[in-house]
Order: sequence, then C-alpha cells, then structure tokens
Amino acid sequence: MSTTATRTGARHLSSFDLKSWVDRSCQEVNRALDKFLPKATSKPATMHKAMRYSLFAGGKRMRPALTLAAAEACGGIHDAAMPLACAVECIHTYSLIHDDLPAMDNDDFRRGNPTNHKVFGEGIAILAGDALLTQAFEIAAQCEAWPRYSHQDIILEIAKASGSLQLIAGQIADLEGEGKKLGIPQLKYIHERKTSALLCCSVRLGGMSANCTAKQLRALTDFGYNVGLAFQVIDDILDVTATTEQLGKTAGKDLTAQKATYPAIVGLEKSRKIAQQLTEKAFAALKTFRGKAKALEALAEYLLKRQN
Amino acid sequence: MSTTATRTGARHLSSFDLKSWVDRSCQEVNRALDKFLPKATSKPATMHKAMRYSLFAGGKRMRPALTLAAAEACGGIHDAAMPLACAVECIHTYSLIHDDLPAMDNDDFRRGNPTNHKVFGEGIAILAGDALLTQAFEIAAQCEAWPRYSHQDIILEIAKASGSLQLIAGQIADLEGEGKKLGIPQLKYIHERKTSALLCCSVRLGGMSANCTAKQLRALTDFGYNVGLAFQVIDDILDVTATTEQLGKTAGKDLTAQKATYPAIVGLEKSRKIAQQLTEKAFAALKTFRGKAKALEALAEYLLKRQN
Repeated sequence: MSTTATRTGARHLSSFDLKSWVDRSCQEVNRALDKFLPKATSKPATMHKAMRYSLFAGGKRMRPALTLAAAEACGGIHDAAMPLACAVECIHTYSLIHDDLPAMDNDDFRRGNPTNHKVFGEGIAILAGDALLTQAFEIAAQCEAWPRYSHQDIILEIAKASGSLQLIAGQIADLEGEGKKLGIPQLKYIHERKTSALLCCSVRLGGMSANCTAKQLRALTDFGYNVGLAFQVIDDILDVTATTEQLGKTAGKDLTAQKATYPAIVGLEKSRKIAQQLTEKAFAALKTFRGKAKALEALAEYLLKRQN
Repeated sequence: MSTTATRTGARHLSSFDLKSWVDRSCQEVNRALDKFLPKATSKPATMHKAMRYSLFAGGKRMRPALTLAAAEACGGIHDAAMPLACAVECIHTYSLIHDDLPAMDNDDFRRGNPTNHKVFGEGIAILAGDALLTQAFEIAAQCEAWPRYSHQDIILEIAKASGSLQLIAGQIADLEGEGKKLGIPQLKYIHERKTSALLCCSVRLGGMSANCTAKQLRALTDFGYNVGLAFQVIDDILDVTATTEQLGKTAGKDLTAQKATYPAIVGLEKSRKIAQQLTEKAFAALKTFRGKAKALEALAEYLLKRQN
C-alpha cells in the first residue's frame, strides 16, 4: 500500500509508508475500542457479544484512521484523538448493523461474515446498534477538552453528522430512491449525507482534538467532504466492477436493488473521472498543511485506488 | 389530580395543585421539543414526520416532569433544565419505538394510537428511533454548563443510563426472560435497568441543571431509583387490572407473552404493598429538601395512584 508519484500531484508521498502507518493506527484503535467497550462477558453477555461481533469484524477503520491522520496534520497526537476516533467507528458500525436489517437493505453478509441479525436475530441486532450509537457518545465525552473546542462542540459535531439531517437522512433518501430514476443532484444529496457527513466529521474531530485553528478546520472540512463523495462514487463503481469475494459483501447489489448509482447514470468512465476530480479537490485542500498532512494525503490516494 | 393527605405521610401536599403544575410543565416541554426538533417539513420529511409522530403521541411527559420538579427542589429554574428534560423524553420515545417493533415486543398500539412501524413501516421506524436517540445528545449538549456539572458529566450521565449496561440491558433481559420462570431478584434486575435507570437519570439531571450539592444529588438518586422501581411494579399491576382502553395499549400483554411480573410471582396484594414501600422510601429521600420538593412529592404520589 506504499504510495508512489501520481498524476494527482502528490509526488512527495513516495516516501510515506502508508501500510505501516495504517497497521499501527489500526492496532491502536482496536486496543482502544476493546478498552472502551464493556467486556464480552459483561451482563447481558448476548448484547456485548453482539456489539463486539460487528465492531471487530475486520472493518478497515478508515474513519478512525482519518481522525488520527487529521490530528497529525494539525500537530496533534493519537492519544488525544483516540476517543473521537473510536466514537466515529462505533457510529459507523451501528449504522451498518441497522442498514443490513431485513427492513432496510436486507444484507446477509458484511465484510465476508454473516451480518449481525443473521447471527444474533433481529431484536438483538437492533439493540446492538442502539447500544453502539449510545456508546459512541459515552466514549466521545471521555476526550480531553481543548482551549478552542469544548465537549459541547465535540458532542454537537458528532450528533449533527449522525442525525436526521445528515447520516440518517442519507439512509432514508437511499431507501426511498430505490427503483426510482434519480439524477446526479439527488444522488449527490444521498452521498453527501450517507457517506460524506460522517467522513467529514471524522476528519474535523481529528483537527479539533489537536486544537486546530479555524483555517485548518476549514481545510479539513473541504478535504473530508470531497474524500467522502469520492469514496461513495468509488463504492458505486466497485459494486459494478468487483466480485463478491473482493468486496466481502454481495457485489452487483445496487443493480439488483435498482439503486441509482454514478455508473448507472453517467457510465463507468465518467464516474471514474468524477472520483478523480473529487480526490484532487481533497488534495488541494491539504496545501495549507505544507507537507504535514502526509498520512491524510496517502489515505486519500489509497481510497481512490482501492479494490474493496 | 390535586393531592390530599395520605398514609405516605406527605400531608403538606394537600395544598399543591399537581394538575396545574403538570399541565404547565407539559406545555413548556412540548413547546421546547417542537423548537429543538427539525420541522416536520424538513427534508427528509418522512423522517421528521415519523420522529414527531411518536414524540407528540400524547405521552405523559413523566420523565421531563421529574427533571423539572427535581430542578425546582434544588432551587433551579425550568429554562435551565429544559434541554435535559427534552433529551430524556427523546431517549424514552426512541426506546418505545424500538421496543414496539415486530422483532421485539411486536406491539400494534401505543397510547391508543398505531405504533410507529404500523404507520411508517419498520425501516423508517428503526431510523426514527435512531434519530431520536441521536437528537437527545444534540439537545442535551445545548444545555448551559454549571460550576459543579460540566457538559462531560451531563453526556456521560445520559449515555450510561441509556446504554448497554442499563436501559438496553433491561430490554434484552426482558426479551430473554420471556416464557422463563424468573424470581424477584431477576425481575428487579430487569426493572432497575428497563425503567429505574432512565427515571433516576431524569431526576438527577434536574438537580444537575440547578447546580445541586453532592448531598442533594444523592437524595435525588435514592428518590429516582425507588420511584422508578415503584413505577414498574405498578405497570405490572395495571397490565393485569386495567383495560386496554384505560391503558391506551394492549392490556394483559405480559400474561400473553408469559412475561415475569410482580403480580405473577408474588400476587396482586403483595405487589401493591411493594409499590407502596418503594414509594415511601422515595418520600423519605426527599426529606433533605425540607418542603422544597413539593412537585417531586406530588408526582411520586400520583404515580402510585395512577390508573394508566
């Protein structure tokens, strides 16, 4: 996963070993999540097993990685960003558990494993999602406060990105859009909420944990927004081009569900170009960090090239 | 609903007009909830209609009333307690929406109206619950901070009471206990978590919003814990003795679902005595407020005598 000079202009990344950085960060995040969550044996054990089943199901920890990388870009340290990195991962995992339910996307597999409700039943899966969402706020509230960003700022940041006007709005619009002929503006509305909101929040929280300046926070917001959109366009592309094995989830699902996707509306080639343009915008936003945002740049480049 | 001298010893309550107090508080809470929540027309409208459908379905606003009454007992004002009162009501409503789902208690009616999933479908009902839970933290974070209680304290208080070791643990234990022969200790475990945790939290938050002393907070905790247990014992009793019309939800449901209840284990008369004893313990905890906890006392007395 080590990055090389590319036409995105991120030439100085050739020296950055993203694989080592991601491996180390992932281990840190896993250790912290394990510490923040009640033990699998804590009563009621079914609940904590179900929460941990999905939380430790081989997720890529992309959102926490973005939080930690953003903290680095602003001169911060991983330890200070960790509660927020873990909080966004809990939110992400809860949203996957609920999205997979029969009443929603009705998915049997996630990351190559049976989905939560397939293992624990629907009732427990709904409650495990609820518990992870609640846990996210409990973990986030355990962060240190900083001169520029209070606990109030942090909680509002997470609640707004995950709430009925953002993350949940995206899922609703996605559900309601199935089988309908959507245009690019409506699809962008869905992507902004379903993916970009929480990604952008992850990046911003990293900056906030490093007590970043207002200018840095604006740059991180631009970066997060564009990487988020790019990520979802690429998700749409991979649903068409990758195999179920590569994805670890059912491929071609969007087509079967008659979901509007970038490839379905503008074709594969145009979709790839859009993803590339969004990634370039994201890179441009990082200029203000003058080479200190190496991990963020490398992550963005990796997300553009990923095969799953 | 005006209270009179009773054998609980709360003789001075005769002068307290609980009905007027509750009516006024209810109106204040409803206005505040309306202001805190996105409009019903906010995109996605389905989501905000579903959230408001359950939030404004004629709930008794018992938890917010306890928050406001606790604030009064500690010399605080309703305005300062309001974000917290609204937050606990959002948590309570989310838990009802999810508990009513087919995968859980499978209830068609709640407060005399069709349940959320009967009106909006299961997918939307799950997301509406998620959104109200998230909204609770967004609203709570908008409270003022106080010298003795920070935003961090407030968020942790709510997250712990609603999390996998308390509110959600209660619901799981309740689900897992169906059809099993439980004793009083197991039943108490369920009640402590399913009902007492959030009731106790509601009362404590009211005190915190009034910057209460550590001694006052301990008294409110004792009060909330015992009122919570009493409330649930009475709920069990009413499920046996009241009609569906009186309850606004299906009566005799516990019996049909073979749920362990106080009347089923120790009989009706003993159950009534237990409720009475718990309420007396709650009253005893209020002595420290030397007559300033009139609304709290009146609420506790009303909860013991309620018919729905």
